[in-house]
Amino acid sequence: MSLSVPEVNHLKHAPHLEGVLPLFHERWSPRAFDKRDVSPAELAKVFEAARWAPSSSNAQPWRFLVGTRNSPTHSKIYEALVDANKEWAGHAPVLILGTSLAVSPKTGKPNAYALYDLGAATSYLTLQAASQGLVAHQMAGFSHETARSLLEIPENFALGSVIALGYQGEPAALANPKLVERELAPRERKPLSEIAFSAWDVPANLA
Amino acid sequence: MSLSVPEVNHLKHAPHLEGVLPLFHERWSPRAFDKRDVSPAELAKVFEAARWAPSSSNAQPWRFLVGTRNSPTHSKIYEALVDANKEWAGHAPVLILGTSLAVSPKTGKPNAYALYDLGAATSYLTLQAASQGLVAHQMAGFSHETARSLLEIPENFALGSVIALGYQGEPAALANPKLVERELAPRERKPLSEIAFSAWDVPANLA
Repeated sequence: MSLSVPEVNHLKHAPHLEGVLPLFHERWSPRAFDKRDVSPAELAKVFEAARWAPSSSNAQPWRFLVGTRNSPTHSKIYEALVDANKEWAGHAPVLILGTSLAVSPKTGKPNAYALYDLGAATSYLTLQAASQGLVAHQMAGFSHETARSLLEIPENFALGSVIALGYQGEPAALANPKLVERELAPRERKPLSEIAFSAWDVPANLA
Repeated sequence: MSLSVPEVNHLKHAPHLEGVLPLFHERWSPRAFDKRDVSPAELAKVFEAARWAPSSSNAQPWRFLVGTRNSPTHSKIYEALVDANKEWAGHAPVLILGTSLAVSPKTGKPNAYALYDLGAATSYLTLQAASQGLVAHQMAGFSHETARSLLEIPENFALGSVIALGYQGEPAALANPKLVERELAPRERKPLSEIAFSAWDVPANLA
């Protein structure tokens, strides 16, 4: 399993389609990270992209907690991960926790779009990362309770995903053969007909 | 107020930053639509981008209801909009309602990331649209109850936003002077320091 990064990416990239930005087909979520750090200037660019996402009433509810290697925040985010993610994600030079203002501290009013908008801003972030030659892997597998407690996240913020960010490493860097296998497995998606339609008349849409 | 489309976009585009994809700074959400229809081939591309968004456990919970001009689905989505959106959004040749599988019909298990992932896929969709020279404007301003009832959306699907999609029109096409004013107002975002930080130590983050 001594495939190089370009060889893995060749396996992972979805077929290009004329007129669709290659970025959408090329971005994927590796688990193998290189040791190389992400410079503050490169890191600022991914958040600059997130800044310009649209949000309901332009509330911009997203707040990203950023932990760079050897920082207390990196350790705390790592600590909250489930074991299956701890196995590889600690090697990422940057661990980010996405949070979103779900209840206004001023009015007590809930924002039903808090997580929706965080999902949007995080997409801007990860697509921009891909365009810089970085890779990002989002995880839902972490303890909200541990993260909230260790990072002292206010109650009125909802938690999104943990994002491992850095430069892609060779699959062989993954110690566990099962992870290497997943690193090389083809990416799969539902066909267009199951995700876009004019009426609820296709049974497959309901599954 | 007889500004052309390029003149409006010049007002709306955020300052370009070296190394950040221009797409993130250039995309915005106009209300003025041109009469021109979006061809099926162009429409397929925006959903092709959405298809490749990442999702929790690769569940791909997004389902997009697509209404093209003069179709029953276009009318039904339009009918669900609040009056302030009805004033302009009916001119868009395509109205889309984003929904997401929030409770599995097989296991009854809720997916806490249903709306987060829909927000992500919709970002892929709208960014791809921008790259094709289309514009998209998402709205939270619609009646979930009306949309659910008219479009017969199953209970276990959560609703995201209505997306008006089409080619950009000149601001003068908007009948209401208040809408013209909003069409020309500068886009504003919080500074980076308020959305990305290593600890909850900046009071501005909490607002």
